[in-house]
Amino acid sequence: MVAFADIQAARERLGTSVRTTPCDVAEALSAHTGARVTLKLENLQVTGSFKVRGAGNKLVLLDAAEGKRGVVCASAGNHAQGVAFHAQRLGIAATIVMPVGTPLIKVSRTQALGAAVVLAGENYDDAFDEAQRIERERGAIYVHAYDDDAIIAGQGTVGLEIAEQVPDVEVLVVPVGGGGLIAGTALALKTRVPHARVVGVQVASLPSMKAALEAGHPVKLPPTRTLAEGIALRRAGERCVPLVKQYVDDIALVEDEDVARAILHLLEQQKTVAEGAGAAAVAALLAGKVSDIAGKRVVALVCGGNIDVSVLSRIIERGLVESGRLGRLEVTIPDRPGGLAEMLGEVARQRGNIVEVQHERAFARGTFGTVVVQVVVETRGHEHVQEIVLALERKGYGSARVLPT
Amino acid sequence: MVAFADIQAARERLGTSVRTTPCDVAEALSAHTGARVTLKLENLQVTGSFKVRGAGNKLVLLDAAEGKRGVVCASAGNHAQGVAFHAQRLGIAATIVMPVGTPLIKVSRTQALGAAVVLAGENYDDAFDEAQRIERERGAIYVHAYDDDAIIAGQGTVGLEIAEQVPDVEVLVVPVGGGGLIAGTALALKTRVPHARVVGVQVASLPSMKAALEAGHPVKLPPTRTLAEGIALRRAGERCVPLVKQYVDDIALVEDEDVARAILHLLEQQKTVAEGAGAAAVAALLAGKVSDIAGKRVVALVCGGNIDVSVLSRIIERGLVESGRLGRLEVTIPDRPGGLAEMLGEVARQRGNIVEVQHERAFARGTFGTVVVQVVVETRGHEHVQEIVLALERKGYGSARVLPT
Repeated sequence: MVAFADIQAARERLGTSVRTTPCDVAEALSAHTGARVTLKLENLQVTGSFKVRGAGNKLVLLDAAEGKRGVVCASAGNHAQGVAFHAQRLGIAATIVMPVGTPLIKVSRTQALGAAVVLAGENYDDAFDEAQRIERERGAIYVHAYDDDAIIAGQGTVGLEIAEQVPDVEVLVVPVGGGGLIAGTALALKTRVPHARVVGVQVASLPSMKAALEAGHPVKLPPTRTLAEGIALRRAGERCVPLVKQYVDDIALVEDEDVARAILHLLEQQKTVAEGAGAAAVAALLAGKVSDIAGKRVVALVCGGNIDVSVLSRIIERGLVESGRLGRLEVTIPDRPGGLAEMLGEVARQRGNIVEVQHERAFARGTFGTVVVQVVVETRGHEHVQEIVLALERKGYGSARVLPT
Repeated sequence: MVAFADIQAARERLGTSVRTTPCDVAEALSAHTGARVTLKLENLQVTGSFKVRGAGNKLVLLDAAEGKRGVVCASAGNHAQGVAFHAQRLGIAATIVMPVGTPLIKVSRTQALGAAVVLAGENYDDAFDEAQRIERERGAIYVHAYDDDAIIAGQGTVGLEIAEQVPDVEVLVVPVGGGGLIAGTALALKTRVPHARVVGVQVASLPSMKAALEAGHPVKLPPTRTLAEGIALRRAGERCVPLVKQYVDDIALVEDEDVARAILHLLEQQKTVAEGAGAAAVAALLAGKVSDIAGKRVVALVCGGNIDVSVLSRIIERGLVESGRLGRLEVTIPDRPGGLAEMLGEVARQRGNIVEVQHERAFARGTFGTVVVQVVVETRGHEHVQEIVLALERKGYGSARVLPT
């Protein structure tokens, strides 16, 4: 099992090859929760996530003969970039297996770090099989993303930094996937700040660590899709579970909606970009899933920032709908020239910005001589949408109503 | 005219009420430009922009009698929040005039800081008139956003910090609106680091400082709409121009497209959120508008992060189109049951994710028995779009083509 000294040694080994990431005061989140919240921003780490710490410790530990054999791993995500980054730096050949259909941006970023990318298999499990085949065939060293003591010790360096940057920390909230990050970080923090509480966060649809703690050993859960794909691991790490059992106080569960809201919160309030998994700890705090934090010094770990911008755009749109800043109205208008223009004119006078109009006659449910129109409007919020509906009613559009989201 | 000692005094006055914002190494931008670029992140400043520095210096300088009269200003943006923030802190009544139709989020954020918000006028000029009326009627102190020595000195504290954080700075790139920020910052930096070059950045559609330098005095330019609304000032500040003339080496101009790309770059590469004006300096560097920077230590000032998320979402979508990650195809298909499904099936086999289909028969330009369909597809990039077109051609859809953006 990993010991505190291993984490200290990992930090020495990593040296300046990775960043001591900054901490930022989270004012809005503090006001919302009643706690004094600080964010540890591993999304600003080299390659955009904490994974580069563990990968670095593992690769530096290879001896010359092992280095010559090269390394291989299966990952379409942050672990791939972490391994590629250090392999390039240390002159070790790296082969990364990613599932076919991995977004080009992830492929090209990993290639830009000098790694050979092999596209194989439909999903992570298939890619994993191919990586193990390469391990056997070429004698390359397999670098596991979390179930490895050197990886756990490397991730634990985050805990050392938190203990120094926020020495009065009382509660640390950490996203949990396979468990490498929380295992190392909890060990480091509890050694330095014994009275601090450590809370892990998983998505409710894939609570693999919670299941492992309950069963006393890792269990494999059925696959699922979640916004927090980076922590959507079906099975907790063998090497991680005992450490989590010893050093972690609780596991909180969040929904995808909580994660989406947290991403938007970080964007708007903290001006920082988090991926789904990276925002999980903030999601738990925002949603009130971490108990007994009032007045306490809380650190939330934002563990990664590599979100696809198209996903980010969809999260923003959904958030706009939720807050009423995008509203969908249904209005019945007379089916004659000018009928649509007059109704839209009234929306404009109420300063609603029209984004989309659906004006379909063939399937209209209105009585003969009328037509039902759907309008998507950008507004200042729920109240403004209601104002627009009232104004339309005053103008004789009696049927105007806001459609549910 | 503001002197260096005024900026030092401003820093003392501000104390810990504002943040010493962090600097971050910009690796991707450095690789792109060949310079060694550091970002000064004023988007992480209290209230999300540098404006809080000048406002703080101005308000602290008011004597007790002036403070009792209260302050008033016209602003729908960062200046409003800066003034409101310090007025609340110092117990001074603040009235902020914003144009009618200001996004609710800006109104509520300013109100949340304790200021009274008056909505008046259609645009900034009207709101300004109303603010001046309030100044006369109530005897409140008018707080100008840039044309005031106390404001200029306050903004200059950014320059002091840069000189300490990046003492080997050779080129500083700063967004320019009315000129308060660059006037103070250039004075501070050139006093501390005399050999550093200072380059201002404006939007090409509203180069009010460039025009002022050429004319020898501020001139009023016609209004325009730009993504960088925070620096879209029609007239440079009287008090700013002489300082800019003395301490600024050059003004670079950027287009809105450059600004959009810079916002996206900061989001994807730096995991940080900038508003249009805030990204202008990065835009100039990315677009190659700042000369003679190869190998040099360059600091780009990211001056604000208060961007509306709906604008951010639109910038992302536009960026996806530009990079081919969203493509629009036109395909002629047979007008029979299954015709559309078969074509979409082939797009799916090529792993294109269909976002939108327009299948309109009445206006179809196809020959009889065929119909022209437009499909918006999410892809891995330009090459992937072309692969989909080739695959469709192989399946007999001879007319398949990518539509221009």
